[in-house]
Amino acid sequence: MTDTVAFTNAILTDADNAETSCVLTRSGRITYCGPEAGAPVSDAHERVDCGGRLITPALVDCHTHIVHGGERSLEFQMRQEGRSYSEIAQAGGGILSTVTATNALSVEELVETALPRLDHLLTEGVCTVEVKSGYGLTIEGELNMLRAARQLEKRRKVRVRTSYLAAHALPPEYRENRQGYLDDVVIAGLRAAHDEGLVDAVDGFCEHIAFSPKEIAQVFDLAAELELPVKLHAEQLSDLGGAALAARYGALSADHLEYLSDVDARVMAEAGTVAVLLPGAFYTLHETQLPPMKALREAGAKLALATDCNPGSAPLTSLLLTMNMGATLFGMTVPECIEGTTANAAKALGLEGEVGTLMPGASADLAIWDVKRPAELVYRIGFNPLWRRYFKGEYAQ
Amino acid sequence: MTDTVAFTNAILTDADNAETSCVLTRSGRITYCGPEAGAPVSDAHERVDCGGRLITPALVDCHTHIVHGGERSLEFQMRQEGRSYSEIAQAGGGILSTVTATNALSVEELVETALPRLDHLLTEGVCTVEVKSGYGLTIEGELNMLRAARQLEKRRKVRVRTSYLAAHALPPEYRENRQGYLDDVVIAGLRAAHDEGLVDAVDGFCEHIAFSPKEIAQVFDLAAELELPVKLHAEQLSDLGGAALAARYGALSADHLEYLSDVDARVMAEAGTVAVLLPGAFYTLHETQLPPMKALREAGAKLALATDCNPGSAPLTSLLLTMNMGATLFGMTVPECIEGTTANAAKALGLEGEVGTLMPGASADLAIWDVKRPAELVYRIGFNPLWRRYFKGEYAQ
Ligand SMILES: [Zn+2]
Ligand SMILES: [Zn+2]
Repeated sequence: MTDTVAFTNAILTDADNAETSCVLTRSGRITYCGPEAGAPVSDAHERVDCGGRLITPALVDCHTHIVHGGERSLEFQMRQEGRSYSEIAQAGGGILSTVTATNALSVEELVETALPRLDHLLTEGVCTVEVKSGYGLTIEGELNMLRAARQLEKRRKVRVRTSYLAAHALPPEYRENRQGYLDDVVIAGLRAAHDEGLVDAVDGFCEHIAFSPKEIAQVFDLAAELELPVKLHAEQLSDLGGAALAARYGALSADHLEYLSDVDARVMAEAGTVAVLLPGAFYTLHETQLPPMKALREAGAKLALATDCNPGSAPLTSLLLTMNMGATLFGMTVPECIEGTTANAAKALGLEGEVGTLMPGASADLAIWDVKRPAELVYRIGFNPLWRRYFKGEYAQ
Repeated sequence: MTDTVAFTNAILTDADNAETSCVLTRSGRITYCGPEAGAPVSDAHERVDCGGRLITPALVDCHTHIVHGGERSLEFQMRQEGRSYSEIAQAGGGILSTVTATNALSVEELVETALPRLDHLLTEGVCTVEVKSGYGLTIEGELNMLRAARQLEKRRKVRVRTSYLAAHALPPEYRENRQGYLDDVVIAGLRAAHDEGLVDAVDGFCEHIAFSPKEIAQVFDLAAELELPVKLHAEQLSDLGGAALAARYGALSADHLEYLSDVDARVMAEAGTVAVLLPGAFYTLHETQLPPMKALREAGAKLALATDCNPGSAPLTSLLLTMNMGATLFGMTVPECIEGTTANAAKALGLEGEVGTLMPGASADLAIWDVKRPAELVYRIGFNPLWRRYFKGEYAQ
């Protein structure tokens, strides 16, 4: 009967109509979740009186680029002053400035610069974070980013899932040799990263300014050979059919999706590929094309929400604010926003049933909130009502 | 030579081109701000090594409704589900639900429910907060809100400026007797509140759904008689000429202003009436009409930014996020966003030179940030880089 914990006097839905509920855990796993009246007799070593607060699964941020060097506030400032893209590029802005800044750092330095961003996510009840490479664009650079991502798990009470994203941007030295970059860096780097156990999923950026569906398919073919799941940045700025391509490879998720067609929404839903929506990037880039919410819902696609935390298009470290943006900008309902940062975000990482749920058997990753109903988590803007966070049944903060 | 403090090894502008600077204070006032090289010899009792961090004036949130009862997340949830306004009203939503919830609380309870919102503002480097009444709509209800606002200064290291806003909404019992509400509550209540020393400024909501310019003028006439400064919620949803009316009364500010005409932008600028922009309400209400930024700039109007923190149209407690929204949604530059939450916000409260500035003579209200340049404060979304906050020269957090 070791390390059993009883979280008592809690609510799981609205305070107005909730019975008093409890969550019981043993050895870091949930063993019961429901009304206190029906709970099994507990000989818990530790009892946590939640004081009538709301318990949810700890949040899952299923799409981030939190490991990176530098920041791009100077570029932001210039853009606000109406400077042209060429002026900004001349001043050293753009994604390549992040690549340079990232490759200038050691693994340990990458960890140190990522920690403040990670910590902000954790203070809002996050226990699982996806972290992508994609700012190295060399084999060593990509591997260092993933090594740093793995280190984060040792520095904080958090579960990290890595995505290998060498197919993020074409470095200028390969401008005339796209296949060379795919072969020499993306493909070779994936084998090397996989050999080192650094890759939980394989990602890409399918867009006119990045890689074509045919190029992405080469990367996904290797992922299939290595039995690694795939995901894809798709249909953010135009419709290249990236989401359908990803779905054909059984992708965990396709992400962004503003330009997704209604037909491909159905293709995704049928493949069980989660639609990861990123309203922070939509907001920052002043986009006006909305994801096809109606088609996604009618198709029965699973919707997730993530910060997309990155220094260019979404310097955003709040998953709570992301929920509000999902509602305000994309018209998502409160349950959609909550599932989008718990159960469906877990599914987008291949962690369905393991995290993002309070069902017995799941990891005891809990967020306990000073609110009376889940809607408050979505409704408030720039406010953090977290009372406590538990990771694998242990008090985390 | 009592309580002198030297804040050394700081930056005041960009790290790239900054000399190492310092701020010296005595008895809660700034005595020097500039390069360490040119600083007077200091025999400071206390030295704070800022470690190369950025010092700015502490932030000023010049338009809030943080004192109120209840929250409106249920209404938010229903709106996201596409429920009609009549359904929401039937379920007890809308401003009148906040009036009911506010009037159900004692002064002490109003203070307690406001503190978490205030605390969130303070953690982001705010030292001065404006607080409005306007959810009482009875004399006692309005006075209780202002009493609670005054109490906040005793509970936290913060400067509070109150605005009397009984002319916020017409309570249903006066639907057929508008003048009765103005006479019996707004006018009589203002005299009572002023007698009790509760009023720093007089505010109103000039809009079709609230009060006409002629009605507002009655309130402003009494404010003039009492020698109280005025400000106004104007041109948020339509152009009634409220800002020009306010300017004629020498108003400190006119606030919202999405529908302000170019002509009235000049009227405001000439009167020295600050344009307080509230992008959080614009965002929450899905507005598309932008304030006339070009006309305001060309007229030389002072621009400020505030949260408008309120339970209906802006449940927003982050002034840093408000800066980002000012840039992203209204196209403001980085210096405009910084001045908008410091010097110009101070001017909107009649506190020019007292707060929102590092000039000698000002109150030593300082925010010290873990950033290298002011642009980072505007660029990041949902992140708090505050290192320390000082209020009147004293460590606050
Ligand atoms: Zn991304
Ligand atoms: Zn207001």
